[in-house]
Formats: sequence, structure tokens, C-alpha cells
Amino acid sequence: MEVCVDCVESAVNAGKGGASRIELCSALSEGGLTPTVGLLRRVKSLVKIPVFVMIRPRRGDFCYSNDEVEVLYEDIRLLKDNSADGFVFGSLTPEGAIDRAICEKLISLASPLPCTFHRAFDLACDPIQSLDTIIEIGFHRLLTSGQAKSAESGAMLIKKLIDQANGKISIMPGAGITAENLEKILILTCAREFHASARKAVQSKMIHVNETCKMGGKCDEYELLVTDVYTVKTMVETAQSVWNSHN
Amino acid sequence: MEVCVDCVESAVNAGKGGASRIELCSALSEGGLTPTVGLLRRVKSLVKIPVFVMIRPRRGDFCYSNDEVEVLYEDIRLLKDNSADGFVFGSLTPEGAIDRAICEKLISLASPLPCTFHRAFDLACDPIQSLDTIIEIGFHRLLTSGQAKSAESGAMLIKKLIDQANGKISIMPGAGITAENLEKILILTCAREFHASARKAVQSKMIHVNETCKMGGKCDEYELLVTDVYTVKTMVETAQSVWNSHN
Repeated sequence: MEVCVDCVESAVNAGKGGASRIELCSALSEGGLTPTVGLLRRVKSLVKIPVFVMIRPRRGDFCYSNDEVEVLYEDIRLLKDNSADGFVFGSLTPEGAIDRAICEKLISLASPLPCTFHRAFDLACDPIQSLDTIIEIGFHRLLTSGQAKSAESGAMLIKKLIDQANGKISIMPGAGITAENLEKILILTCAREFHASARKAVQSKMIHVNETCKMGGKCDEYELLVTDVYTVKTMVETAQSVWNSHN
Repeated sequence: MEVCVDCVESAVNAGKGGASRIELCSALSEGGLTPTVGLLRRVKSLVKIPVFVMIRPRRGDFCYSNDEVEVLYEDIRLLKDNSADGFVFGSLTPEGAIDRAICEKLISLASPLPCTFHRAFDLACDPIQSLDTIIEIGFHRLLTSGQAKSAESGAMLIKKLIDQANGKISIMPGAGITAENLEKILILTCAREFHASARKAVQSKMIHVNETCKMGGKCDEYELLVTDVYTVKTMVETAQSVWNSHN
């Protein structure tokens, strides 16, 4: 189980719950952006499992300007120098093909660390061709919801991709996976790993509250979404039991 | 005019429009988080105006754990080493007082660069006492919406704070300031600087579109909010004309 987190507490809880890997991001509300070096260093000092780092410079699509590509290069170098265990990124051309040039350069900067192609795949035009390209480029793993709004609704395509990959690359379902639908998704897809945030709303420690103010558009300043140790444990156990009975 | 930005293009456009300063963030959708060193380096190579950097480790409140405070310290050091021109942060105790210990440490790490106390102030319990504390600690500037949902609705408190500060610190109105309400806010508050994002929706360059997938919760992957050169120009001219006629 890979747990995506965007704060120190979530990372610590993922470790406590028995996750195998962390995907470290900033701003999960946007689907994850590049975290800071400060966050990576602190998380690495607190958890023992591998920490894979998201490389995404802003919200929105995965079609990057030359200046944005320079930001990606710079950040991957710095985060590698600060003990990242792997990276997670993806880039598309306007036509929806995998952007080979950008991905190859990022893979070479990350080398020898393993890289995951992320859900930019779910906005690509031809999943079969795109998976071939991702394998050719040298990614170790693909995170996907099967081009659907959740891994549950995309389960059939995920199964097809796992068959196509035939062990050359790991296909990891992600998006909307919960303790409730995990068993179904693992049985439908035959996936051997999966990705979830396993978060629960936690009330702020603030005693004084000003509800009229908002920092961002729609967010609630007094509620945090934090990875829940018990939910991670439950999901790890569910997965283990599915995998044991299908071996 | 200070323009808050969360991508390279917005920073460049703020400079072109004649802004005096950039507040560099990640994820403005959350009210701004700490940006990466990669983004700071690229923006500094492209714009000539000062770049003040947001130091905020996650969304939500401004009551930080010890681990989060370590992240703040680490990031401020790294961003200072990478040519930040100033910093923007704020921290509160659960009771809604300014967290003096954290702020003093961050100010000393940032020294001699100027620091802005940001809209955490708007969630503090006693604005008059809080402003006194912020001045004592040594901040150069306060960014506030007058504890209201926008600088327009908080204009009366902002005016009062400007009178109280009496030039010892700059009070900068921010939140919901547009080309339409700027003149009114400047006249009501007598502020000599202000803060806005001046953004406009820009369509993605993607030709291939998959509308069924979303990366984050509510965000549209095919629309970006980017600072608009013309809006910045208009706001700078409006402010100049208000300030000229009230001097």
C-alpha cells in the first residue's frame, strides 16, 4: 500500500499503519504538487518506509512550458540530493501523447532511483499505446484510475493494462480507493499494489475561531484531512487477505 | 501593488504589468503554501521586482506542531539561500494570539530580509493587541482583510489598524481586491499599498481532453487561473491616481 500525504502527521500515520511506501506531495486538494525540501527532510527523519516524491509544479493539466520544465529539473535534483527514494511525475503533449523528451530527461536526472508515471496517464489519449511508451521510457510503475473518475469505475481498463504490462512494469490503481471498495478493486483488477490517502477529517486545535474568513476559495481552515492509522491498517489487512486467497 | 502568484507565467505577467513586488506561493487555491526552490530560482531569473516567499507548510489553520515548525525553519533557510527577497508567514496559538516564539525564530532566520505577517492575523482573537505584538516582534508589514471575508468588507478595521500602526509598520489590504473595488478600498482604508492576484481563467493548451477524470477534488484540469498583465496595469494605474489625488 502506497499512501499519498501532504503533511508531516499524515506521513507518520501512514508509517504507523503499516504502509509500504509514501507518496509525498503538497496540496492533495489539487491532486498533489511538488513538496518542499523542508517537508521531505522532516518526513525522512520520522518514517522508515521509502518516500517517493511528487514532481508537479502547479495545478491543472500536464502540458508544461519550457520555464516549468526548468522548475521540474531543478526540483528533482534538489529533492534527490535530500534523500528522496523515488519520484512520481508525468507529462503530456497537447495531443494527449506521453511527452517522451521531458519524461526521459526527468528519469535520467532521477537515476538510479525508480520513477512512477502518475495520473497524467488518465488524461492521455490512447491508454494502450501510452503504456507501451511508459514502459519503453523506463518507468518502474504506473499510477492510474483507468482513465475514469475513480479506480473503481476504471477497474476494467486497469485489469487490461495489468495484462498488457505482463510484469514489465507495476500497475498501481489509485483515486477514490477506500477501506470499503478496496477488496472489490483488487479482485477486479488483480493488482498487487494500490494507492490511497486513507484520510479522515480532524478538527483544528484552534480554540479561537473566525468563521467569516477563508484563506483559499472553498477550504475550511478549521478541519484538516489527515491519514488515519486505523484506516491504513484495515486496508493493509484487507489487501493481504485478498492476495493470500488468490495466490 | 503586490501580486500573489503560484506559477511561473503569473510571476512574469505580474512583472510585465508593473507590479512592485511578488508574493510567491504554491497552491493559491488553499490561500498559498510554501513554493519549491525550483520555482523560486526560475522566477528570480525571469523577473526583476522583489520576490517575497510564502512560508506555510500545509492548508488549514496556523497552529503548528513541533515537526511542522522544523519544516518552516528548514524551508526558510533554503529559500533564503536561493535569493528570496523577503518572507511571508504567520503563526497563532490555539487561543488565537500571535505565536511570538515561532515568529521571532522565523524573523531571526530571515534576517536581514523583511518579513510580512500574513492573513493568519485575520483568524487572531484581538486585532488591536495582535498588531502591537506584530510590531514588537519586528515584522515590516501586515497583510490583512480586516478579519473579514474580503478586504472590502473589512475596510473599516483596516483603516483603524493603519491609524494604530502610525507608520511603524505597513498595513497592506488583501483578499478579494479587484480592478472594480480597488479605488473604493484605497479611499476607505487610506492604504499606501495593496495585495491581489489579478488572475483570469486561461484555457489549457491540451487538445485532447478527458473530462471524466479529476486530479483533486473540485479543480478543473483544463482551466488555469493566471495573473493577467492588463488587470495588473489597470490596478497599478487606479492606485496611482487615487494616491496622487489624496497627497
